[in-house]
Amino acid sequence: MSISMHAASVPVFKQFLTSLDALLAKAEQHAAERKIDPGALLQARLFPDMFPLLRQVQIACDFAKSVPARLAGTDVPVDDDTEQDFGQLRARIAKTLAFVDSLAAEAFEGAERREIVLRPGTPKERKLDGRTYLLHYGLPQFFFHVATAYDLLRHNGIEIGKKDYMGAY
Amino acid sequence: MSISMHAASVPVFKQFLTSLDALLAKAEQHAAERKIDPGALLQARLFPDMFPLLRQVQIACDFAKSVPARLAGTDVPVDDDTEQDFGQLRARIAKTLAFVDSLAAEAFEGAERREIVLRPGTPKERKLDGRTYLLHYGLPQFFFHVATAYDLLRHNGIEIGKKDYMGAY
Repeated sequence: MSISMHAASVPVFKQFLTSLDALLAKAEQHAAERKIDPGALLQARLFPDMFPLLRQVQIACDFAKSVPARLAGTDVPVDDDTEQDFGQLRARIAKTLAFVDSLAAEAFEGAERREIVLRPGTPKERKLDGRTYLLHYGLPQFFFHVATAYDLLRHNGIEIGKKDYMGAY
Repeated sequence: MSISMHAASVPVFKQFLTSLDALLAKAEQHAAERKIDPGALLQARLFPDMFPLLRQVQIACDFAKSVPARLAGTDVPVDDDTEQDFGQLRARIAKTLAFVDSLAAEAFEGAERREIVLRPGTPKERKLDGRTYLLHYGLPQFFFHVATAYDLLRHNGIEIGKKDYMGAY
């Protein structure tokens, strides 16, 4: 036994929410400097039935708030997904960061055995213990959406590198 | 203290190496059915100075072998990166999976405090403890390359969904 559930979740989400914000800041600046409609980036997709950048960021924030909240046994804050521009999207990230930061480390004690129910009340309902939920579901989902946001920006010519994705560690 | 360093690494790498293999299997089949040159997928990039699919998979395998090896205090197996087709690339994944599976759980005891040196002997040398190395560097790097491989395949019209990325958990 060697890593706490708090250490395996909260600081990791914080690192990549912060890097996601910095990626969006560079995209916003790129658009401003070249007089590109910000919507051309925010609505960019890698394929017609994939989510656009704006939605990728919202979903990344959803995992970053819901995974630590459920592990800590607290209610998941509700967001109404009304963001439409870079400023609002970055405010959503800031709000998510503040929430994650507000969770007390003690609330994660025993979280590895806490029962987490995915998609409750649906035919796809699935019960996982907290450890499986974090390591095999929550973090992989979160990283998927952060990396896809990065890929979308790279694909659209924003000058970023993997260092920007990695952020400070 | 609640998750072992073994549980936080080996089974996670196995889940996503397995899903990466399944993604490549679908891509290989897609190319065969439509008489698409497999190289058109393997050399596909999201931007000219990003790595193509083949290299993304090799790098994902590199993190999947090197991170658990270093945590377990064992030598990192050497691969010469000669893969050129889907069969060879999937064999590389199989080899990586077998290596990860061969590591004894006991070898990870105390790995959270083991000193890991990134880029040793270079101006960018960096020392991390095992916990930081796994959670803030190794897993995020691995997920980046798996998600980017997925994004590349989606961008090229392969019929896969996030379920395929997630694999079995």
